[in-house]
Amino acid sequence: MIRYYQSGSRMSQAVGYGGLVHIAGQVADNRKAGIEAQTADVLAKIDALLAEAGTSKSKLVAVNIFLPQIGDFETMNRIYDAWVDPERLPARACVEARLADPDLRIEITAVAAV
Amino acid sequence: MIRYYQSGSRMSQAVGYGGLVHIAGQVADNRKAGIEAQTADVLAKIDALLAEAGTSKSKLVAVNIFLPQIGDFETMNRIYDAWVDPERLPARACVEARLADPDLRIEITAVAAV
Amino acid sequence: MIRYYQSGSRMSQAVGYGGLVHIAGQVADNRKAGIEAQTADVLAKIDALLAEAGTSKSKLVAVNIFLPQIGDFETMNRIYDAWVDPERLPARACVEARLADPDLRIEITAVAAV
Repeated sequence: MIRYYQSGSRMSQAVGYGGLVHIAGQVADNRKAGIEAQTADVLAKIDALLAEAGTSKSKLVAVNIFLPQIGDFETMNRIYDAWVDPERLPARACVEARLADPDLRIEITAVAAV
Repeated sequence: MIRYYQSGSRMSQAVGYGGLVHIAGQVADNRKAGIEAQTADVLAKIDALLAEAGTSKSKLVAVNIFLPQIGDFETMNRIYDAWVDPERLPARACVEARLADPDLRIEITAVAAV
Repeated sequence: MIRYYQSGSRMSQAVGYGGLVHIAGQVADNRKAGIEAQTADVLAKIDALLAEAGTSKSKLVAVNIFLPQIGDFETMNRIYDAWVDPERLPARACVEARLADPDLRIEITAVAAV
């Protein structure tokens, strides 16, 4: 059975199937915030979606990070490194890509075990 | 068992394994068409691949959209929103990225339950 | 059970779960090398990670390639086409994206059956 979380008019924010949950691209609510605050906001949203799906960041399998300004890499990493479970580190990729709204500084997708 | 669909000399257009089918990056055949026509063409190709793998857009789990011109976002969404099953919305991410051929306006990958 | 391979301080280079292994974004060690050498280095790293996870390139399901210069597409393909198992071709997507280090010419993520 496929399970949908926080379905809107365009997408679900997470979809669970076959022991995995796929988190849709998460972006910050406060689009005028800097990279630190936007990263923290996105990670908090991922925490909430994982919890809703019955899992947590300690069961992340893979994370994809998109930064419109790759120069934000080190600052983003400082927030990310403090958030991720150091004993259960997911695979990760991070590339530069402009996002739908030019104010957005980060978008993250993820896959976790449930 | 791994199942391969529309294998060419470089890639398979879809690969099924473990209850999921992974759709390769789909691009339009008519590369001179606008964003509306290219989006419709790509979504039709995804429909055909999902059907070949024994599933449909109603079982999509996650969709990734790459647009060389993020300014095409709203127009693409109009076509996408009319296509996707509103009762079974997959997780989605959409970022800007240039594609292999400068005429291409959209590339989409997807994962679906089978 | 989730299995972690080559875990560092920020990420695991591969994570296995539920019959699949997710390979983190692989980049070349020799960042001053050209696209041929960087591609070969990345593919060798993927071979090693797949072997460590008990699988091989013949069980790849999906591959994502990021090139900071999409003009490297044909040269990268020459190396890629010679590497991939022609009887068991994974789904693939390739888009342009700048990477964390401006010297990097390619980054690849992958998912394989175990």
